[in-house]
Amino acid sequence: MFTPRSIKHCRACGGEVRYQTPPDDNRDRATCSACGTIHYENPLNVVGTLPFWEDRVLLCRRNIEPRRGLWTLPAGFMELGESTAEGALRETVEEAGAHVEMLGLFTLLNVTRVGQVHLFYRARLLDTDLAPGPETIEAQLFGEDEIPWDEIAFRTTRKTLELFFADRRSGSFGFHAADIT
Amino acid sequence: MFTPRSIKHCRACGGEVRYQTPPDDNRDRATCSACGTIHYENPLNVVGTLPFWEDRVLLCRRNIEPRRGLWTLPAGFMELGESTAEGALRETVEEAGAHVEMLGLFTLLNVTRVGQVHLFYRARLLDTDLAPGPETIEAQLFGEDEIPWDEIAFRTTRKTLELFFADRRSGSFGFHAADIT
Repeated sequence: MFTPRSIKHCRACGGEVRYQTPPDDNRDRATCSACGTIHYENPLNVVGTLPFWEDRVLLCRRNIEPRRGLWTLPAGFMELGESTAEGALRETVEEAGAHVEMLGLFTLLNVTRVGQVHLFYRARLLDTDLAPGPETIEAQLFGEDEIPWDEIAFRTTRKTLELFFADRRSGSFGFHAADIT
Repeated sequence: MFTPRSIKHCRACGGEVRYQTPPDDNRDRATCSACGTIHYENPLNVVGTLPFWEDRVLLCRRNIEPRRGLWTLPAGFMELGESTAEGALRETVEEAGAHVEMLGLFTLLNVTRVGQVHLFYRARLLDTDLAPGPETIEAQLFGEDEIPWDEIAFRTTRKTLELFFADRRSGSFGFHAADIT
């Protein structure tokens, strides 16, 4: 089970925090020993797209850790003030400079080990003009037989690509949920 | 835009935090003025189920704020160490004491205003034995024409119920995504 226990001080008063189970709760929470504030830690969403142009898909080569130099779909942490789709579009613009039409949610992948949920939307590229941002070394379109399978950064990218090509062969795109264990 | 700015002290060292835009970022983050740690604030997932038995659905009357006394689908904040479906099942047991078979993800509803994403799974009740927990006043099965529409706690519950009954009339259940604005 994922228990980071990374909180040492209260964000309200700066007091020392202890991990203990509050009344009416059933798991340890970071609890301020000075003011009593309880600090919850919860999973985070990573939102992104699978951009495609005719029979090719867009991948970005990462310019940041982790997995610098490996290929990924454009994605990143969802921010406050945006929907899952808005966040996915923002990351696609920031990392690839791509112009896309957002289509439906394609995959929801639980990565419980690291406390994350990854959500990828299909996105139709409106042109092939790309302008990678500082987090990306290069952005490139790949046909199915050109995908650098040995240099894919994350298992959620790999899973989403596999499902995309499988659905394309079957002739219809569905929504897929899976656990990455 | 949802900007709580609720962090006053660093959770690593207890030092004072200032909201400022870090280099290579494009929005203000809570940054410790003592040790430099950056504290990110991100949306949270609420996970739950729509449990059904023949032509009736299960609702819980809330025994906690907010919206104490109003009816809701069993749901709560996703925890670390569980998948979205595992969290939804846990909440269904905790709040209703219901025994269910989990089916597919039914709705993904962005509630951007409060920084939340609500995910509801369809769940087949295996029996009608219910044992509401302390957060629930009572749990009850309702036919479509018995739903207390004027006493529903949350718009995501209402939307999920509406989509369920619409899909049932159409004869097939899909996956639905929507923004609650």
